[in-house]
Amino acid sequence: MFESAELGHSTDKDTYRQAVPALRAELLDAQLDLLELRQFAVVVLVNGVDKAGKGETVNLLNEWMDPRHIQTWAFDAPSAEESERPYMWRFWRALPPRGKIAVMFGNWYTQPIFERVDRTSKKAELDKRLDDIRRFESMLAQEGVLLIKFWFHLPRDAQKARLKALEKDPRTRWRVTERDWRYYNLYERYREVAGHVLRTTSTAAAPWLIVDGSDANYRALFVGRTLLSALRRRLDAASQHWTPRLSVAPLPPRVDGLNVLDALVRQDMRRKDYDDQLERLQGRLALLSRSPAFRTRALVLVFEGMDAAGKGGAIRRVVGALDARQYRVIPVAAPTDEESAQPYLWRFWRHLPRRGKVVVFDRSWYGRVLVERVEGFCSEADWMRAYAEINDFEDELASAGAVVVKFWLAISKDEQLARFKERESEPHKHFKITEEDWRNRDKWDEYSRAVCDMVDRTSTEYAPWTLVEADDKHFARIKVLRTICERLEAALG
Amino acid sequence: MFESAELGHSTDKDTYRQAVPALRAELLDAQLDLLELRQFAVVVLVNGVDKAGKGETVNLLNEWMDPRHIQTWAFDAPSAEESERPYMWRFWRALPPRGKIAVMFGNWYTQPIFERVDRTSKKAELDKRLDDIRRFESMLAQEGVLLIKFWFHLPRDAQKARLKALEKDPRTRWRVTERDWRYYNLYERYREVAGHVLRTTSTAAAPWLIVDGSDANYRALFVGRTLLSALRRRLDAASQHWTPRLSVAPLPPRVDGLNVLDALVRQDMRRKDYDDQLERLQGRLALLSRSPAFRTRALVLVFEGMDAAGKGGAIRRVVGALDARQYRVIPVAAPTDEESAQPYLWRFWRHLPRRGKVVVFDRSWYGRVLVERVEGFCSEADWMRAYAEINDFEDELASAGAVVVKFWLAISKDEQLARFKERESEPHKHFKITEEDWRNRDKWDEYSRAVCDMVDRTSTEYAPWTLVEADDKHFARIKVLRTICERLEAALG
Repeated sequence: MFESAELGHSTDKDTYRQAVPALRAELLDAQLDLLELRQFAVVVLVNGVDKAGKGETVNLLNEWMDPRHIQTWAFDAPSAEESERPYMWRFWRALPPRGKIAVMFGNWYTQPIFERVDRTSKKAELDKRLDDIRRFESMLAQEGVLLIKFWFHLPRDAQKARLKALEKDPRTRWRVTERDWRYYNLYERYREVAGHVLRTTSTAAAPWLIVDGSDANYRALFVGRTLLSALRRRLDAASQHWTPRLSVAPLPPRVDGLNVLDALVRQDMRRKDYDDQLERLQGRLALLSRSPAFRTRALVLVFEGMDAAGKGGAIRRVVGALDARQYRVIPVAAPTDEESAQPYLWRFWRHLPRRGKVVVFDRSWYGRVLVERVEGFCSEADWMRAYAEINDFEDELASAGAVVVKFWLAISKDEQLARFKERESEPHKHFKITEEDWRNRDKWDEYSRAVCDMVDRTSTEYAPWTLVEADDKHFARIKVLRTICERLEAALG
Repeated sequence: MFESAELGHSTDKDTYRQAVPALRAELLDAQLDLLELRQFAVVVLVNGVDKAGKGETVNLLNEWMDPRHIQTWAFDAPSAEESERPYMWRFWRALPPRGKIAVMFGNWYTQPIFERVDRTSKKAELDKRLDDIRRFESMLAQEGVLLIKFWFHLPRDAQKARLKALEKDPRTRWRVTERDWRYYNLYERYREVAGHVLRTTSTAAAPWLIVDGSDANYRALFVGRTLLSALRRRLDAASQHWTPRLSVAPLPPRVDGLNVLDALVRQDMRRKDYDDQLERLQGRLALLSRSPAFRTRALVLVFEGMDAAGKGGAIRRVVGALDARQYRVIPVAAPTDEESAQPYLWRFWRHLPRRGKVVVFDRSWYGRVLVERVEGFCSEADWMRAYAEINDFEDELASAGAVVVKFWLAISKDEQLARFKERESEPHKHFKITEEDWRNRDKWDEYSRAVCDMVDRTSTEYAPWTLVEADDKHFARIKVLRTICERLEAALG
């Protein structure tokens, strides 16, 4: 892995001086094209051994290009806000919008590597994490992000010499810490872990680029030229309207016409039973959400359903049992301009709850495989890969301690018609019905097919779907509340 | 202050039951109108003594209205991210966009009150804070935010009875903490401090509303109806295109034609001097920004100037001395849609640096009194009040430890023409010149007048303007770097 980086590359002063002006100009040009085209974002990861010139090189890139459009991130230990959410949350927050470049030191690779070097994590844990990272990076690539991963390498002797030299000069002594010497002593182990990580995460979409850090001129030219050529190639492709694409096998048609939605049977509930159970279940939820055990967990509720399926009414009964200080309802509408300049899931990441909190999504990331699929707002390749991406996303939520409960409120076509008509005739409810509702209704069968595919592909052990018979509103609300209580009780133990 | 809240108000069950359905419907209606009109935001503050029913009442409001469009915030002790920024930062983050309602428990009043009750702050400190709050709330009101401030009150006996009753019931015992009893014992002092706070912050734009918290039905109706009438009144006004307005005395004309910009004299610098000084000053800045003393401070740099004044070049020389992990450059462009749904200063608050960090604003909040004034993008009342708002804003930055350094890069009209022509003729710089630059140039005199007013009104002791003679780029960059070094040295001691 590091063989060719240990050959002792170097570039003499004259060559360097001659090469830099043109490289600077071309990098700046490419950056401006990127900004103007606004079709994709660039993420540059900077990893590697200490004192191999990571900081110096990034400072140089900022000098050569326009620093107003480069965001540099240095992630230290997670803050309290960060550590109460899934591991990837803070990296999602830092993703650049289309047209911009982000440089990330101390990115998603840093912690897994150090934990393994320090033996605070097991081999299997590292491998699980690397698998998550591979999927995440593949998602980024498919969302069009250009991902460039640099690994700065130094042979052991060179690192020692660098540390000694810095220590000797009073002006740079502050740069050498105890931590540096500690990891220098662990060099061999670090090299081994890094080798494993680099091998398993060098993919076609995002290969690692190993930089020999021994010589300042060489490494600067190497990084600058690599960045330039990656940018240029991607810009050329983008200007020909190329976007990353998957070859997708289409979903097979249903052979026997069986369908999870058609299999549901209307369920009714008497008013008196409803009132009794509502009070009991709300009380149960109130206690659960206020219990000490919940303070280390979080609750993510997802409500999906055809128009007029009763999502709003069900949500009101759920939050009625909670403390208003504890929950947040996110009505999912069209993305804002900041949101649409980011990968699809970004706008949901920003709303994730801290520990002890509840977030209710009134419609959700499932829009990708429902309305966006049916209306053709994204390509087949986009919504096909969304199933796996969504499963990964919910897996991260669950792994970080969140209980994820998802409801499909299922109504019949007749019941929807009755509710639409009621809405049109009552002035108080009139605002709830629009032309679009009628248009969506025309695509009832296509939506139904999308729902069945969604349930098949995203009902997981850690985040199963609950189909709710919703022609009777009372029955639906009770089933929703009971499901939440049961899932919470199972999780809180 | 609390006399009428201690009369022992109550509402019997029947009256309450009869009143609620209509109130709910009207509140929901008002909320929908607010959402549809999208002309102003609503902020409801909830303060008052413990156990006076704050939480219960807010839960009820969420039940009565559509919780998807109410954001409820409960601020505890500040997180690390929050405590490293000015006091108001976390409240700015929580401001709702136009069309939405935010309910804030534990808002900007909480900490000043408790600190004074606990005697950890002096009277003068409290009064300074209250003055800041008054200005902040007046700014909100003038930005169109509807601010409703509820104070929940309980007489001492009633509070004691409430605490005892809660403790007796095993289901509610958890709600009574040691802290509750501690503040119960400090009741008289708390009452006195609260009385002072309420008196001095009850303004015409945002008066306090005192709620007798003894009876649950009474307080619910009181809060619901008060909220409804405030919403309704403001909605009616908004639908008649009313916006809050100041009567503004126009700025006096300059009697003698003297002008700070015209008083500047061209300064030149030889290439050799420039190279020498650049290296020295960048080294000085590098050491300062990496010094231990800087870790408890922050640096906010503001660059303003006519088109082609050399802002970009100066910024590159400054950040060239910094570590890329430490700074962020914010190029200020047109606001995004999330930003334009918020009060004017919101989009700058979101970029404020933590301790030990640097943020460079390439154009800034001064756009309000420059381009927005000259181009008529806001009313005279808006930009007139901006001077005081900006001064308050920078005062908060400085009080939180930030060093605020502001540059106006001044070029002559001839020099601008020469630079425009150079840009047009060089293909590499061609992208830097647009039609708009020429249009702005036509308004040279109006811009100059706005700049002079800006300098007069916003050059403060804690954040003075530095006018930079910028016809010679070398001289300008050196003056910028030297000023930053001197300001930092003075601040770091």
